[in-house]
This record gives sequence, structure tokens and C-alpha cells, in this order.
Amino acid sequence: MAFIHDNFLLQTSAARDLYHEYAKEEPILDFHNHLPPNEIANDRRFENLYDVWLAGDHYKWRAMRANGIPERFCTGDATPREKFDAWAATVPHTLRNALYHWTHLELARYFDTHDLFNPDTADALWDKANGLLAGEGYTTRGLLKRSKVRALCTTDDPTDSLEHHRAIAADPSCEVRVFPTFRPDAALRLETPAEWNAWVDRLSAVSATDCGSLTGMLEAIRARHDYFHKLGGRISDHGLHHIFDEPCSEAEASRIFDRARLGGAVSAGEVEQFGNFLMLYFGELDASRGWTKQLHIGAERNNSTRRFQNIGRDIGCDSMADVNHAGPLRRYLDTLEQRGALPKVILYNLNPQDNYAMATMLGNFQGGDAGGPPSRLQLGTAWWFMDTREGMEWQINAWSNTGLLSRFVGMLTDSRSFLSFARHEYFRRILCDLLGGEMERGELPRDLDLVGGMVRRICFQNAADFFGLALD
Amino acid sequence: MAFIHDNFLLQTSAARDLYHEYAKEEPILDFHNHLPPNEIANDRRFENLYDVWLAGDHYKWRAMRANGIPERFCTGDATPREKFDAWAATVPHTLRNALYHWTHLELARYFDTHDLFNPDTADALWDKANGLLAGEGYTTRGLLKRSKVRALCTTDDPTDSLEHHRAIAADPSCEVRVFPTFRPDAALRLETPAEWNAWVDRLSAVSATDCGSLTGMLEAIRARHDYFHKLGGRISDHGLHHIFDEPCSEAEASRIFDRARLGGAVSAGEVEQFGNFLMLYFGELDASRGWTKQLHIGAERNNSTRRFQNIGRDIGCDSMADVNHAGPLRRYLDTLEQRGALPKVILYNLNPQDNYAMATMLGNFQGGDAGGPPSRLQLGTAWWFMDTREGMEWQINAWSNTGLLSRFVGMLTDSRSFLSFARHEYFRRILCDLLGGEMERGELPRDLDLVGGMVRRICFQNAADFFGLALD
Amino acid sequence: MAFIHDNFLLQTSAARDLYHEYAKEEPILDFHNHLPPNEIANDRRFENLYDVWLAGDHYKWRAMRANGIPERFCTGDATPREKFDAWAATVPHTLRNALYHWTHLELARYFDTHDLFNPDTADALWDKANGLLAGEGYTTRGLLKRSKVRALCTTDDPTDSLEHHRAIAADPSCEVRVFPTFRPDAALRLETPAEWNAWVDRLSAVSATDCGSLTGMLEAIRARHDYFHKLGGRISDHGLHHIFDEPCSEAEASRIFDRARLGGAVSAGEVEQFGNFLMLYFGELDASRGWTKQLHIGAERNNSTRRFQNIGRDIGCDSMADVNHAGPLRRYLDTLEQRGALPKVILYNLNPQDNYAMATMLGNFQGGDAGGPPSRLQLGTAWWFMDTREGMEWQINAWSNTGLLSRFVGMLTDSRSFLSFARHEYFRRILCDLLGGEMERGELPRDLDLVGGMVRRICFQNAADFFGLALD
Repeated sequence: MAFIHDNFLLQTSAARDLYHEYAKEEPILDFHNHLPPNEIANDRRFENLYDVWLAGDHYKWRAMRANGIPERFCTGDATPREKFDAWAATVPHTLRNALYHWTHLELARYFDTHDLFNPDTADALWDKANGLLAGEGYTTRGLLKRSKVRALCTTDDPTDSLEHHRAIAADPSCEVRVFPTFRPDAALRLETPAEWNAWVDRLSAVSATDCGSLTGMLEAIRARHDYFHKLGGRISDHGLHHIFDEPCSEAEASRIFDRARLGGAVSAGEVEQFGNFLMLYFGELDASRGWTKQLHIGAERNNSTRRFQNIGRDIGCDSMADVNHAGPLRRYLDTLEQRGALPKVILYNLNPQDNYAMATMLGNFQGGDAGGPPSRLQLGTAWWFMDTREGMEWQINAWSNTGLLSRFVGMLTDSRSFLSFARHEYFRRILCDLLGGEMERGELPRDLDLVGGMVRRICFQNAADFFGLALD
Repeated sequence: MAFIHDNFLLQTSAARDLYHEYAKEEPILDFHNHLPPNEIANDRRFENLYDVWLAGDHYKWRAMRANGIPERFCTGDATPREKFDAWAATVPHTLRNALYHWTHLELARYFDTHDLFNPDTADALWDKANGLLAGEGYTTRGLLKRSKVRALCTTDDPTDSLEHHRAIAADPSCEVRVFPTFRPDAALRLETPAEWNAWVDRLSAVSATDCGSLTGMLEAIRARHDYFHKLGGRISDHGLHHIFDEPCSEAEASRIFDRARLGGAVSAGEVEQFGNFLMLYFGELDASRGWTKQLHIGAERNNSTRRFQNIGRDIGCDSMADVNHAGPLRRYLDTLEQRGALPKVILYNLNPQDNYAMATMLGNFQGGDAGGPPSRLQLGTAWWFMDTREGMEWQINAWSNTGLLSRFVGMLTDSRSFLSFARHEYFRRILCDLLGGEMERGELPRDLDLVGGMVRRICFQNAADFFGLALD
Repeated sequence: MAFIHDNFLLQTSAARDLYHEYAKEEPILDFHNHLPPNEIANDRRFENLYDVWLAGDHYKWRAMRANGIPERFCTGDATPREKFDAWAATVPHTLRNALYHWTHLELARYFDTHDLFNPDTADALWDKANGLLAGEGYTTRGLLKRSKVRALCTTDDPTDSLEHHRAIAADPSCEVRVFPTFRPDAALRLETPAEWNAWVDRLSAVSATDCGSLTGMLEAIRARHDYFHKLGGRISDHGLHHIFDEPCSEAEASRIFDRARLGGAVSAGEVEQFGNFLMLYFGELDASRGWTKQLHIGAERNNSTRRFQNIGRDIGCDSMADVNHAGPLRRYLDTLEQRGALPKVILYNLNPQDNYAMATMLGNFQGGDAGGPPSRLQLGTAWWFMDTREGMEWQINAWSNTGLLSRFVGMLTDSRSFLSFARHEYFRRILCDLLGGEMERGELPRDLDLVGGMVRRICFQNAADFFGLALD
């Protein structure tokens, strides 16, 4: 039997029923990823398997480096085929890593290839996949359609023109809905003043708003938020090492802004203060528009100075922080609630040790009086390093035990690759196996409609109801 | 088959043997809960299912809020039946939450109802349960008897008159033993000076001791400790966000006391110091009397300022702190040991990430030379948010791996409800399933008396031996 | 059937095939333990079961204390047989603790005894074991041979003469290779100046190098590192509560050294600084020689002041710290990498909550360009309190999910006992059961050679390839 078969990961009869009858056919709403909108606008065709599968994938680079592969074959100047072969040599050593499952799921689903991937099978795969990529249905839009993606949300800087989103929206031949996500991390980076000032300049230009004062910058940010809203955006996103927690009045923020804008030095404490001030402002913006705020918390980034200087950001040298988040998170959510400005929130913590403290903290601020959907604060699906069977089960368990799994908005890819949608299948199989096993053991009622209905909602409908994106 | 059947959660033959032959019939010593002693003294009868099941249950309120239910139906002015219906609408969404299991166990055990609870079955349940509540055996004492509760320990302020405990003790018709637990949290709350002073005033009055000086307050506290002891109390309890860790001499404590007593300002550091001083004093009191000290550590309370102001404490807006406890816990236990005053200790940590650090820290202070029972320091059973199958298994595993499960004092409800004793059954089933599975897999000897004897002791006898409460 | 049988812990057919065909016969490279080299050099014979099994075993003392056994029977002046009987009375209460498994594995493997150990069977065991210990094959070397130990690495102070290592190396009748490990913890202990100065004096004497200046001490340390290298040492080791993280220039280190060397006071911050300076120096030494640096991080030691004063160090009063390590670890590894001096690293964290943050941090610094084996930084096997089935599975899962299990260097005993090698069998059974179960469930390919080859390498060959010890 092939490694990836119809009942892959589905151990029980109930699990198989749940997956095949309730999960499999649901469309995908991938509400957070890093796909390049221009490649959808242009319906990009890929030259070869390297381009669609390996280029830009820091997960694979990390695995290859762990396998002793020199950097030349990861991010360096080796040829696409050389890099592909280095990956082929690495995959057999990824047994038990999610990459092993992802790899074979992607090969099965996109290239109808069922051999175990290794140096012996690499040649045939390279040829077969490249042949397919040159044919029908393998452009970006073709791949999205093949994956049943109904809609997706990219991740975008507030200064982005969103020209590609406009082009996509204006193109009736594009069947997938593509929405921008408002990710203003650059606004917070006062610790690198030159970059920050350049960003504020761009913000000023794109919004046609004078950013010579804090008030101006806040206006400009609001204008961009409005603009994202006009193009269908309903979600913001923030990547934070930790929750900013230094109190900051508007007067203080203004003083810090003025100094930074003139190129003056800003202390670490002031970066924290300004960050706190802005994050509260962003929260108010999101609440005022009925948006959802995503918080990605706890990454320790660019840990290898050498590689950061040689190669740059987002190249596989990030890892988990271990920070005590509960108090700061409490104060952030509580302050917004007191201002009547607590938006819907999806919080993704990177370090799994935080699952329970985070999930229970979110639970303090639930309730129907603020309007919006049930479970308006949620612990997001397992993120990044935790996007594994173990990590997903931990997140599902933590959220089930401390909240309502039934209201969970579910999976997203967070990926830069058009082949990553197989991870929705991976998630669905794991979810169904978990629930099906519990049905068989009598821990859940043996009521297929009850449990299956929940599964189906988690696959698509909960997210469709939650975010208020215009899907039709 | 009904969802709750004879072998609910018991997957293996060994598990079933362990439960039915060794666990099921054991009585209950519920050594920590929040039951109102007056309702036992008065043998209260409940008007309806809402009164006995929903009123005061912040677990349910949290779930209902997470389901988008407005506050009116949780703590507000909706009618009992409206609130009950809101709960009925929520329960189907609690699949995989312990509430789903608890709910159906409670309905089966107390109301002989085996339907899945949801809006369709709510009406019949409301009528049936209310009928039963009006009949024989459904008063508080009736429910305790039905649950085979031999003895229980309530949670009481040192200034409490304990009149209801005296009434119960004096009433030969009451078959359950009811002991007070000494919980002096109010003594530590110098951060709210008005409340604190009012409490000290009450302490002074109830003990007929001048509390104008630290010495006076310590004397008054000791007098109340004596009084609790006379009424059979053998356990104290403390709810702490973290272990106080600022050194404090008696002279410093005295200065802080004097200032606070006069209504003067006390700094955060002084609150820590005074707390540390008093916690050591409480430890000495407990050790001198052969009591057990319970430490409930790591709750972040009243997180929603808005709800705290509108509704109050203990209404479902608490969650887990993430604090580094190991060093402070070390210093607390070590200082008591150096003073020859380390009492028996049961430590409950709220955040499961602390299970192992806490359990191994307790292990440093075990030993037979101090007298008392084996494992005189124990990691308490899974607490609050962790009182789930996952949480209980984690606690059982952590304690098994770092200590002696065989000496574990076992389960308690920590509940405000007379229907919560079904959680002892829940715990016992989970324990038996865990151990039975290991017997079947050969991880434990297939020796039913060896393993069953341990199970039986954990259900009741270990606690009976440990605390020295007068059970007969 | 005996408790310890051929397929103990091996639940599936695949698990049994993996263990019996790929794991069982592999030799042992125990690259980290605390065996006394003199007892190997002298081929010590043990007088009785107490001497070989209980003496010096703080794991057992902890369990006995938890069972209420007085200290006299742990570390005190009771007779060997009295202590043995106290242990026999404790073992039945260790059900579910790894000690229960270890105990019965050791009795089965070394004394061919298959009864459950308890007071009833203690007498027969005492006689049988003592008889065997008096006969053929039960000296230290006999036990090592019986355990198929090809090579082992002891743990040694830089000032150690290594005379016993030299004697072993010079003795052609000794079949096991015994290498020293360079563990310079004493060099960092400026907080106890008298002990530290005495150690520096010994260092000066053994290296014939003037240690009147920092430069001198660094030279002396390098000389000892060279000496360990000449005797085959390829590994260093450090036991750290936390990673030192205070920046320290050479001039500052020199000033701190001078003051401490003259007996002057050194602040806590200066201890941190000096530690950071030296740890970077040690890293450079290891890198320059192609050694592997072991980091054992996160023990909170000597927690009971009373027992520390009465009995001493390493007597079972240590436990897990809970410290935020990610930032300091990042800076330590990054600084070494920037200096081109990042050695191979095996990091063992004591607190399991750190598994993921640590594993992902190590992953940032992998790569083939630095030379050396694949996965040149590794998360070490579960350490100390975590050396349990649960702890090993957590470590294996964390490393599988964030790195390459296939490249894992595997198990070690970390033990002071010649009977502890049964723990390699324990690890192998657990590994095979984990992987075999996943094969049966289709989570791993049902390809016995693929998975079995990985198992075999983890048992021995990965470590043999990794460390570069002279095994032949």
C-alpha cells in the first residue's frame, strides 16, 4: 500500500467516516498566509519543481542544514537541480518530522507521485513534476483551484499599494477570493531608526498624509486601514516577540515619535512604550471596523548574526522565545476592553508551554455582549514549529479543554508556497482521527452527525462566519 | 448504549476490574471544597435544577460566554429557566471539554437521566429533575449521602464563627463529617488597606484579642487556628498568585503592620515582605499542630476589570499565571525546614507547565525523620482548569514519575456544588483506565491485587491516613 | 509470564522486529556517565548487592524518603542489609515510577531474577545476588562486558591526574575503552572564594603553570584540555543552573580574577560575568580541538540547606529550575559562531518545558559549512528526572519534530552505577515501541530497513561517528 493512502492517519472506522463524509470535501478559507499576490494576479507558471516547492522554504533549509548540507545548497548559488538533490538526500532523515508527511502528501496530491522520496526516486520525480508544471492546471490559480481554496488572506504592509489585490478583484476569471491582511510590524521598529523613518516616509507618501507628527502618523495608518477595508480586508496581524507592556500616554508617545522622527536615539524602554501605545491604537482601529486581530507571539528571530548579515531575515534562523506572557497579555486585552475597543482576537503562541496560560487568559474576555461571533477570542491553530501532529493535537486539546472546540476557526497554512494547502488535509485527518478515536472509545458520543457537524464547521464554516470576509 | 454506561472511560478488561472491584465502592473524603456549611447545617432543599446545578458555577459561565451568550443569562437577571436554556444551548458545543463529561455524569448519577443534554432534551430534564429535587433524598445531606461522602472540608476565613460547623457537629442526624479549613488569604491583602483593616478588625473581635500590633494580630491568628483545631480542622489553605519571596524580619513586618494599620501606604515590595513573613508564620502554626498546608499557586485573578467592577470576584474571569516559581518555593520550604517547622504540604499548581519543577522541588524535602505519613509533601491533584482527563493524567504522570503514586492522597472537588462529587467517579475511572491499560500492555505487573490495592488507597485510605481528620 | 520478558514494552509486531533485529545486539557507547575510573582500573569486586546497587544512588534515596524512610536507612549508618530491606519495602510503592522498571530490568539482566521485588522476595534475592557477585564476571569489567559496553566517558575535573584512565589505557586486558570528559565547573564557582582558590591552586600545580593571573589560569586550563585530548578525551561537560549572560571583556575578567585570587569579595553580577567569559573560552577550546561540548542546564541544586550541611552534595536534594533560557542560550551560541568557534554541542535541559525552545534554538546554528557531522548541535537524551518513558518520549518527539531523529546520538546513562546500562535497553525498547507503533498505524512507512536502519544508528553508530572517540 502507498504511504499516503485514502485512510492515511485515520485509525478507526469513526475517524474514516468523519474525514470522508464531513471533512474532505469542505472548501478552504486560508485566512493567514504569505503567498505573493502578484503571482496570483499574474497567474504565474513555475519553471520547475524547485521553483514551486523549494524556493523560499526555510523549513526545508533548516532540515537540510541539520543534515549537514552546506549553505550553498540551501540559499546559495547551487543550481535548482543541485538543491533539489540535496533535499532528496535529506528527506529520508526527516522521518517523524512533519516535513516527511508534508512532503509525501504534497507529492501525492499535486504530482500523483506515491514513491517514498529519496535520492533513488528523485530523478523520476523531477521529470514527472516538471512535465506537469508545464501543462494544464499548474499555474498558481490552477494549484489554488486544485486545492479547493475558496478564499485566502495574504499578509501585507500598510504601505503596500495593494495593486495586485485590486487586479485580482477586477479579474472575473480568478475564482479565488484574495484579501489583504494589515500587518503594521514596521511601525513598531523604532530600534532601527533609519528603517523606521524610511517606512514612515513611505506611509506618508502612500496615504498622502503628513507624518511629521504622531497625530499625522496615526491618521495615515487609519487611512491605510480604511483602504484595506475597502479592498475587503477584515484581519490585521502582528508578529511580536512579546506583548508590549510599558504604559505610555499620548504625550509620551508624541515625544518619542518626535525624537525618533528627527533621527534621535530611542531607548529600549521607549521602544516598549511606543509599541504599547501603537498596539492599543491598532486594537481600537480593528474594533471600530469589526475586524479580527491576529497576534503571533513568541518568536525569537534572526538568532544567527552571521546568517542574518550574510543572508537576511526569514531564512530559517528563528526559534521559540520563552517569555512570561500572561501578565502583559492580560493588561493588553483588559485595557482594550475597558476602552470598549476589544476586537475579535486570534492569538497564536509559538512556544507550546504557553498554550494553557494563553487559552485561559483569552477565556476571561469572552461573552456575547460585545457582539460578534461565539468565541470571539480564540487560540489560533498550532503555529510554525508546532504545525505538526503533536503540536496540532496539543493546541486542539488545550482549546477543547479551556474553550469550545466547536467554535474553532481552524486551520491556515501561514505558508509562502502554493503547494502547502495539503496541510489543511493533514490537519483535517489529524482532527478526525482524534475525534474518531474518542468516539470509538466512548469518550465522545457515538453520534456521527453531532461530531461530524462540528468537524465540518471547523473545516470551513466557522471561519467563514467569524471573519466576515466577502466570500461570494 | 447510553453515553454514560457502566464502563464509561474503561477501555480494557483490567481497567474495568480495577474500577469495579477496587475503586467504585470506596467512600469519599473530599478534603478541599467550597461548599457552604450553612446549607449542610440547614439541610437545604433546592427549588429547581438551576439552583442546585447552575447558580454560582463560574465554569459554566465561562463556557456560556465562549458560546456568545450575553451576561444576562450567566450572572444577570434572566430567570432560572432562561439561564438553564442558555446552558442547554451551550452544552453541545462543549464536546471535548470536561464540562461535557461532568454534565452527563451528573445527570446520570443524580437524576438518572441518560439522554444527551441539548435544547431538545432540556425540557424533559427540567421537569424530571425538579420533580426529584422536591422529593426524598435531594437535600444537601441527601446528595452527600447519595455520593458516599464520608467527610468533607470546607474553606473558611479565620474570622468565621464556624457556627454552622458547630451545628453540624452537634447534630447526630448528620452522617457526614464536616471540617473547617483555615484560609487566611485576607491577612495578606495589604494592597487594599481598607479591606485589610476591616478584616483585622473582625479578627480582633472574633478572637477577643487586641490587634493594634503585629504581635497582637499573630496572637489572634493563633487563637483562631486553635479554634479551628478544636472543631476538627487539620488543614490550612492559601491561594497565591506566586510564592512571596522578599526577606522580612519581624521588626520590618512590625513596621509595615503599624503603617498599614494606621491606613498608611504600603509599597508593592512591602506587601511581598509582609506576605512572606506571615506565610512563614502560618507554616509554623501548621507544623506545630500537625496540620497539612495546602498551597494553591499560580492563578491570575479578576483579569477583566470591567467584569470585576460590574460583577465581582470568582465569576469566571480568572486564568493561569506564568511565573517562575522554583526559586521562591525552594526558599519557602527550606526556611521552614531550617526552622524545624515544615508541615505536611499539598501543593496545587494551576499552570501545568509547572508540574515537574514543583513535583521535583517537593521531593527535596521528603523523609521519615520529620514524622508523619509517607510523602508528607505532595503535588495535589489537577486543579481547576486542569481538572480534565488530560490535566489529571499529566498530574498523575508527573507525580508517578517524580514521586510515589502509591502514596497519593487523591481527588477532591474544589467545588461550590453538591453535584460535583461525580468528579470523584470521573477521576477514579481515569485512574483505573490509565493503570489498567498499562497492566494490559505489560508496563505494570498483571497483578490485580498489587495495582488494585494502590487504586483503593488513592481513592480514600491514603487521605484518611494522611490528614488525621476524625472520621469516626 | 515474567514482568520483564522478551517483548517487554514492545506492543506491536513492528516494534518487536525493530528491537530484536536492529537494536538489541548493538554495542553501547556510553558517552556520559559518572562511573569511578579507579574501579575500572582496579576491576573492583563488590562485596554485596548493596555495594553494587544502592550505595551512592540518590534516585533510590529520594524514593525511600518519599516513602517515609528515615535518613539512617538512606545515607546514614544503618547496615547494608538494613538499607537493602528499606529499599525492598519501598519498591512496591514505586509503581509507575521509572525506578520500578529499572529495578526489575537490572535484576533480570544482571542477576537472572524475575520475581517482583518486595520484602517477601528480598531475602532470596540478597543471597542469590551476593553469591553471583562473588563469582565470575561480576567485577566492574565483567559487568561492563556483560552489558556490551564498547566505550564509556567518565566525568572528570580538569585538575584530575587521570592516572586511572592512563592505567586502563595501558592495560591490554581491559576490553572497554574509557575516556575522560573535561568538566571544569569548579573554575566558575567564584561565589565560594575559598573553594575556588583551592581549585585554582590545584590547577596550577597539576599543570605546572603559574595561575597568578587570568592569562595564567587560561593557559593552565588549555594545558589540561590538551592533556585530556592526549588521553583520548573529545568531550567537555558543564552543569549550569542557567546560561551566563552578563557581557564581560577580558579586562573585566582579569580584574575580577585578580580580586578573587586575593580573596576579595566578588558580587553575584561578577560571578555571572566571569562565568560568561570562561564559558566562551571553553567553547573556543572545544571548537579548536573538534570536541563536543555538553551543556547540562537547569538544575536547582542543594535545595535543602539542612541536608546539604548534614550530608553534602549530590544526595538527592536537587530538582528542576524554571528559568527563561532562550535569550541567554541564543547569545552564547551566536557569540561563539561569530568568533568562528562554535563546537559541536549536546544540550540537556532538565525541565521538560524547555524542550521545544531549546531544540529550536539549536536548530538555528546547524549547517554543513562548519564541518563535522550532521546535526552538530543536538538536544541530548532525556536527563535525570526525565529519564523515564514519558521523558524520553517527549525528548524524542521534540527532537523529531524540530530536527532530525535519524541523526540523534542517542542514549547515555549519566549514572554512578555499573548496573545502570540496562537503561540503554530501556531506551531502545521505548524507541522501538514508539516507531513500531507508528509503522503499524501507517504514520511511518512500513519499511523495516528504513526505520530499522535509523534505530540501529541511534543505538550506537551515530554516536560513534559524532564524537570522534578512538573506539578501536
